[in-house]
Amino acid sequence: LHWRFLIFAGIVAKKQAFGVSMELFYAPGTVALASLIALHEADIAFTPNRLDFSQSEQRSEKYLRLNPKGRVPVLITDAGALTETPAILAYIAGLNPKKPLAPSDPFDFAKMQELNSYLASTVHVNHAHRVRGVRWAALQSSLDDMASKVTQNMQDCFALIQAEHFRGPWVMGDQFTVADAYLYTVGTWLKGDGVDIATLPGIAAHADAMRQRPAVQKALTY
Amino acid sequence: LHWRFLIFAGIVAKKQAFGVSMELFYAPGTVALASLIALHEADIAFTPNRLDFSQSEQRSEKYLRLNPKGRVPVLITDAGALTETPAILAYIAGLNPKKPLAPSDPFDFAKMQELNSYLASTVHVNHAHRVRGVRWAALQSSLDDMASKVTQNMQDCFALIQAEHFRGPWVMGDQFTVADAYLYTVGTWLKGDGVDIATLPGIAAHADAMRQRPAVQKALTY
Repeated sequence: LHWRFLIFAGIVAKKQAFGVSMELFYAPGTVALASLIALHEADIAFTPNRLDFSQSEQRSEKYLRLNPKGRVPVLITDAGALTETPAILAYIAGLNPKKPLAPSDPFDFAKMQELNSYLASTVHVNHAHRVRGVRWAALQSSLDDMASKVTQNMQDCFALIQAEHFRGPWVMGDQFTVADAYLYTVGTWLKGDGVDIATLPGIAAHADAMRQRPAVQKALTY
Repeated sequence: LHWRFLIFAGIVAKKQAFGVSMELFYAPGTVALASLIALHEADIAFTPNRLDFSQSEQRSEKYLRLNPKGRVPVLITDAGALTETPAILAYIAGLNPKKPLAPSDPFDFAKMQELNSYLASTVHVNHAHRVRGVRWAALQSSLDDMASKVTQNMQDCFALIQAEHFRGPWVMGDQFTVADAYLYTVGTWLKGDGVDIATLPGIAAHADAMRQRPAVQKALTY
């Protein structure tokens, strides 16, 4: 066999193993940042597809065929499309055996998923009541009322995470996991939600450590 | 060795393998039903601990030490306490190798988690705006406004699940998984939310099939 063929075969094998045909649909400033960070941390090649929320591209007919929820992120794999950040992150965490981004112990894996689920169903939801209130109410007075609770709700959530769901230096202790990508991403919304991250020193130190990582720096350029 | 010792050793080994020292804190009518169903489907022995929400036991000092979130369910294991239904269910799914309640294929596992995450962060949240609106707003007019959107939001969510996230006869196809326990549980709230399940024939047939299962019948007695 010619050496060129061997190199080619190796590249094909690596692409198949690490899913180079993957695509991520994202928009800047959204929760999709967590998936962008995780893909870079795991060294997974992928095609980024940026949606323009100012043009409501997430509600376009073409995009709704791909994701009827009209949200980001969506991870496109050879096996199909995947939505919901906790599911996408746990999937990415196991893609590259050389860069595992989740604990192998089943209980520790569950603890990681516990934080990811809390971020999705409580923290992100609390945040969304500031600018996405029309999902749950119609009157302007309701939207204003909801927005006025966001600062305290976000402060309470992050205080609880800092006290109960953060081992240090990373969420799960010494191992960096996808939960770090998710926690950092939701934490980038604190300022806009009126929370001073300096009141949460553990969360602030974690954000500082995250910003030192090349994968995070790369993900922030999208 | 005496035969009595061998039987005793076998029971101890089974208890250790299947975590008989587990406890589940729950309240009737809540999302904890999904975990009760999953524990019975997986043949995991556990101690049920019922909280009386009418006495606000979930806000008691003693319970908040166990779960500062003041919610149910909490699964107590030898390794520690676990909250958040998607994390608890995925953990239970792998506890009994003879009764796996999740797909072994990583992408199918992610698809199961995708539905579980959607149920937690979108469907349960939509439902909660009818009776738990004080989490996100203070004025009575806001609570009324939010409650008035719940029927349509729940109808839309279940229509999407039926069309996009249901392979049949179970959520993931031929394999019964913890996603079935979760979907059924949230579906029991449809009537109270003003949704006629007959308008969702796939969801209605799934609920009927669930009610035939001994584990579901047992879980509904708690």
